[in-house]
This record gives sequence, structure tokens and C-alpha cells, in this order.
Amino acid sequence: MSSFDVERVRADFPILHQEVNGQPLVYLDNAATTQKPNAVIDAISDYYRTDNSNVHRGAHALADRATVKFEAARTKVAEFINAPEAKQIIWTRGTTESINLVAASWGKTNLKAGDRVLVSAMEHHSNIVPWQLVAQATGASVEAIPVDATGTIDMDAFASMLNANVKMVSVGHVSNAMGTINPIEKMIAAAHAIGAKVLIDGAQAVSHWAVDVQKLDCDFYVFSAHKLFGPTGLGVLYGKREILDAMPPYQGGGEMIETVSFAGTTFNQLPYKFEAGTPDIAGVIGFGAAIDYLNNLDREAASAHEQALLAYAEEKARATDDIELIGTSANKTSVMSFMLRGAHPADVGVLLDKQGVAVRTGNHCAQPIMDQFEIPGTVRASFSFYNTFAEVDRLFAAIEKAKMFLL
Amino acid sequence: MSSFDVERVRADFPILHQEVNGQPLVYLDNAATTQKPNAVIDAISDYYRTDNSNVHRGAHALADRATVKFEAARTKVAEFINAPEAKQIIWTRGTTESINLVAASWGKTNLKAGDRVLVSAMEHHSNIVPWQLVAQATGASVEAIPVDATGTIDMDAFASMLNANVKMVSVGHVSNAMGTINPIEKMIAAAHAIGAKVLIDGAQAVSHWAVDVQKLDCDFYVFSAHKLFGPTGLGVLYGKREILDAMPPYQGGGEMIETVSFAGTTFNQLPYKFEAGTPDIAGVIGFGAAIDYLNNLDREAASAHEQALLAYAEEKARATDDIELIGTSANKTSVMSFMLRGAHPADVGVLLDKQGVAVRTGNHCAQPIMDQFEIPGTVRASFSFYNTFAEVDRLFAAIEKAKMFLL
Repeated sequence: MSSFDVERVRADFPILHQEVNGQPLVYLDNAATTQKPNAVIDAISDYYRTDNSNVHRGAHALADRATVKFEAARTKVAEFINAPEAKQIIWTRGTTESINLVAASWGKTNLKAGDRVLVSAMEHHSNIVPWQLVAQATGASVEAIPVDATGTIDMDAFASMLNANVKMVSVGHVSNAMGTINPIEKMIAAAHAIGAKVLIDGAQAVSHWAVDVQKLDCDFYVFSAHKLFGPTGLGVLYGKREILDAMPPYQGGGEMIETVSFAGTTFNQLPYKFEAGTPDIAGVIGFGAAIDYLNNLDREAASAHEQALLAYAEEKARATDDIELIGTSANKTSVMSFMLRGAHPADVGVLLDKQGVAVRTGNHCAQPIMDQFEIPGTVRASFSFYNTFAEVDRLFAAIEKAKMFLL
Repeated sequence: MSSFDVERVRADFPILHQEVNGQPLVYLDNAATTQKPNAVIDAISDYYRTDNSNVHRGAHALADRATVKFEAARTKVAEFINAPEAKQIIWTRGTTESINLVAASWGKTNLKAGDRVLVSAMEHHSNIVPWQLVAQATGASVEAIPVDATGTIDMDAFASMLNANVKMVSVGHVSNAMGTINPIEKMIAAAHAIGAKVLIDGAQAVSHWAVDVQKLDCDFYVFSAHKLFGPTGLGVLYGKREILDAMPPYQGGGEMIETVSFAGTTFNQLPYKFEAGTPDIAGVIGFGAAIDYLNNLDREAASAHEQALLAYAEEKARATDDIELIGTSANKTSVMSFMLRGAHPADVGVLLDKQGVAVRTGNHCAQPIMDQFEIPGTVRASFSFYNTFAEVDRLFAAIEKAKMFLL
């Protein structure tokens, strides 16, 4: 158990202090979305109450203030993941759009018939379908890197798949369905050795520990604000400068152009080339407050606390009859996915909710790995640093009660 | 002058009650973005404090509450523009993305070499560049419908451009640069008569009066929440059901799929087919509150008040030496674009800002029409229902003072 002061942190998150179905809420659905500290909620309100204006086109004080705060948040995010330059941070609607942007812009320019895109068998749909769409358009193929029964990537199989036709390796840093931490450093090095680019879906990683994109040496790194204690509707695309510079625009509109005429249009530089239209200004500024909040936290202690929660929960799970853990890789974030033997995950979820315990059930938008395991889905309890050991106890008490109904 | 109770309305908008550069703020940049009533700001805060959860995948109370409120907002927007079904309302990041979605999905499926897309010469870049991008990909052409010196579409020229090769007419309901209200009913009928589809960019219209998409009979209607007193980062795409049903997906990811496998993926129905990834849940719910706010307003009186402000301002402008109005169409919303003879618009904007008056200057992302008028841009004062006659007086007093520096 860590010395992390969880009660002090919980005070920052207003949503946690409510009853659901007559019981204090136990929120264990953090892999779906994280909760927001007051600092984030207030930053959004304050923006709308004080500074709201369109950005970058300003002739007035509100527009100047909004633009300064908007661009300051970009710099905060760049520093947060150690990007070389703020202009390498592209605002998108979320992880999904970030991947779609790369698949469409980089993919349609760089992929041709016979080329191969490798993703892992445990990917979220958002890291499969965009590649299938571009594959359909270009004649490239999308292939799944095998995953073993513990939910771990088969690195030998991966190595054997690599050849000169592989142009892109796109893998999750962490599996949303099982919590597996993938050996992306090795995968990036191996992919680069054969000349492929690498996109890392960091949606499930950035909330757990500090990510350094330069150290990773990935070509793209993408994540969502709402899974990092920030607002909904905002995401980040980081890319290497020379790759982003060479990519054609994704969407057309204001902001992303240099000059527009019916004879021909020229495009703006990074990051604006990829940011057509009025951006989510309030969301970006709220996300900047989330980064500030995290920077003021002892993130190593927070991460250790999450790992302690996971270890505590998995120990209890192993001691509980009828629980089968799904995803038992040696290297995991604080996600515990499981089946209650004989019960459909959805029924378990409903009975836990009746007792105030919020988990996710279903295929977690990762249908291929569920199909491989021949299960309809799992019950997923995902812990954040504001969860407590007492909440893990509540989860298991609720499971015991659910068993009385279901088994 | 109308009987609209502007002071009562102003009390709902906290941002208006501040000083800028030692003067009470006069916010006349409503065509760039509108301000938000407390009801919208509070709806967003309340969502994050009480209900925040991912939607549609819920096994728990928060997810259910978030989903119900999220889908209720879709229904509110459908009713607001009189769409036949809520599923015809697609959430996007904004007007720009809505147009890009149609240009990419409908355009790449339906346009081929030799086909023509008509837009007006006064369009915002967001209604030019997406069509240029799809034209580049398909071999279609993008042509400008001529606009006369008053900023009015030349309907004879439009009629003469129509032939069987025209597949899409995409025009703004209202010009953001000049406030011209385009005769879209006639344009829609004429386009349909030759078998073309019509997209209407309503970004500058929906804030001023009630729009009825069924009565208009347009094929697509698009607008942004942030220009309709709602949050940044959210937009709407309305489309006719049979057209949307026939369009391929735009982005891939969670939510938009039915089943995913490496053998092949099938797609969800409307509206989810076009909504890949976690949506902007807080933004959608905040936007629902904006629609509620508007529904509780006497919109006809609000619109009459805006028109009275415009008439009052333009009368003053005509009585002022050295002001040249840009855009003098007979049919206008409350946008007054002008040049102060001999002065660069940017310099005028700075001097107005020093006196607390916020206007926009520049080409307003409508460079082609500025090029046609051979001006670098304009000074644009755009009025909303919360503006006052006293604020118009402040604008003109500030212009007089600016003239002392500039002329």
C-alpha cells in the first residue's frame, strides 16, 4: 500500500461524492472515461464567463486572452509528453479522430496495394476500423499481430510478420479491455528496423504514468482528453515534425489555409494545417487545467497507488470462487477484466450498479480479442488514483451478492 | 425599436458584464462566436459534477443518465430545425467538419471527373476548401456563383450555370462576411430541378431565426453550436434520411460499427454510423441547454431587435463621413461590415478595442469575396439579441475617436 493521500485527492473530484441506488458511488469505469477535478470544471466555466471568443483571428481583448490560453494549453501538452515543439501537438476530437486523421492523410499518401498495416489482435475498434477503411481505398491489408491466452502480444509472431511490405505498425500502449501494457519500445525499434512507421494509441496509458514520445521514438502518439481527467470531445495527435509536414491536409476550412481562391488554395503550417474550423477552445483550456492538475500531483505515487489497488483486487479475485480473470499479462495497468462463471457480464454489471458500483461490461470495443477468447465480453473494473481499497472491498462484496442472484 | 427586454436577457450572459481597457465591454463579434447564457455554462458544470460517464455502453447509473441527456439533446436539435427524425442529426466538431464529412463521404461516392460543384463567391473557406479537396480527388470542378457589388448572389448567372453536370450546390444561408441572406429557397428548387443535391451552411443563420429544414427541402443543413449560444467544439449535420443511409462511413472507430473482425467489419445505423469514438458528451448536453434557452425566448422579438439594431447602425454609418458599408444587400442579418476610408481594418479594430468595443477585422475567412472587392478585409460589427442601442452608440463614438488617429 502506498502513502498516497487518496482522501485529499478525492476532495478534488465532486462527482465521487454522491449516492447511486442508495449507496455511495464506487466509480470503477475509469478506462471508459475519467472524472474531472474542480480545477478543470472551473477552468471551462471561467472561460465562458470571462474570455469566450474565437481564437487566432482576434482584433480584441477577449480574442487575445482566449488565444493565449488556448496556445498555452498546447505547450502544456507538448511538455507533458516531451514533444520537441508545441506545433507537433494537433488538436482533434479524440483518439479515434487522431487515428482517422493519420490513416486518411498519411495512409492514403503512403499506402498502396500489397502494403501491410499491422495492428494487434487486442486493439480497440478505433485502431482497427480506420485502417480497414484506408486499406479498402488503397489495396493495402490490415493484419492482426497474435495475442496469447494471457492477453500478451506474441513477440516472436510479430517479428516473423515484419518485412519490407509492412508500412505501418499501429498498436495500443495499453489494452483498454485487459490492461495489458504492450512492449512498445521493442515494437517501435523492430518496426523502424524494417522501415515501417509506428502509431501508438496512448488513450489508456497517459492517465497512468509519464509518457516521453522522444524516448519512445514513435512516429505518432495519440490520446483523448476525457481519459486524462480533461473534457469530452478533445484529443491529441502528436507526430514527428517531418512526417506531419509531408502529410496532406485532412479537412479543409478556416484556420488550415494560407490563401484561398477558386484558382487554387495553399495551406497553413503546423499545427494549423490539420485544424480546420473553430477549435474546441473551452475544451482545450479545460484540458490545460487537467495537465496543470496532474503536474501538481505526485504521479509516481499515484501510479503506485493504482498498482496497489490492482494487486489487491486481483488477489481478492483469485481467492474468489467463480471469478476468472481475463488478461493476466505480467505487465498491466490498473484494469481488472473478469468473467463471473456462468453469468453474462451484462447481468453482473446491472447487479453491481444496484449496489452503487459502476463497472463497464461488454466487448469494450475490442470485439476481435473477445471473439478469440470466445466470450461475449467481460466485466471490467478499472481503477484510477482516486479509488480506494475500501472501494475494492465494496466491489467484491457486491460481486458476492450478485453471485447469490446469478449462480 | 422593439419591445424586446434586452436588459433582462443580458443578465443571463455573465461575460457581458465586464470592463475591457477601462470601459464596459461592447461585444460585437457575434458572427465569430456567440456568448453563452448561465444555463449553458451550468449545464456543462453540472454534467461534470454529477453525471459524467461514457455514453451508450453503460452498465451503470451515471452512464444511463449521461446517455439519456445526450440523446435528449439530439431530439431537441431535431425539433429546433424541424428534422423528421432525431437520427438525422449527426454530431460533428462544427460546421467545418459537417461540410468535410459530406464532401468526403457523399462527394467521393457521387462525384466523378466532369461533375461540377457550385458554391457562391461569398462562401466562408469552410464551404470552399472541402469541395476543392474532394474535387482534387475525383476530378470534379468547384465553381463560384457570381456575387454582385452589393454582396448579392446573381441569380441569373446561377440559373445559367445549372446543367446536368452540376451534382452539388453548397451555399451559405447567410454570409458571415456581410450578413447577406441568400435566396436559398429558390436556389434549392432550381438545383433540385436539374437533379443536384443542396447543402446549406446555416452557421450564420440559426442564431437569428427559426429554420425549418423540411420546408426548405435542402438535402443537408449544417451549423455550429458555438454560434448558437452553445459550447465550442460541437456541430450538427442534418441530412435527408435516404441520402445519409446511402453514404459510406466517414471515420472508423467505436460506436459507428455493428461488428468488427479482421475478416470484415459492418457498420451501425444512423446516426451512429457517422459518430466514431466517444462524442463530446458535455458539449452536446450544454448545447441542449442552449436550445432550451432559445425555446424560452421570444425569438421573433429577438430577431426584430437585431434587425432594429442593424437598421440603427447602418443609418448612423450612412450619416458618418468616411464609412463605406461592404455588403448592402436588401436582405441581411445583423452584420455590418465596413471600411473606414484610408484606414486598414486591423488598425481600426485595435483602436476600437482600446475603447472596449470588440469587433472582428480581416477577411473573415472569405478571401475570394474580399479579393473581388479588392480590399484586404473589413471591420465587422455583428449584433446579437443581447446587444443594445447604447452599444451601437458606443461603437460610433469609438469610430469617431479612431478617425482622429487614423484619418
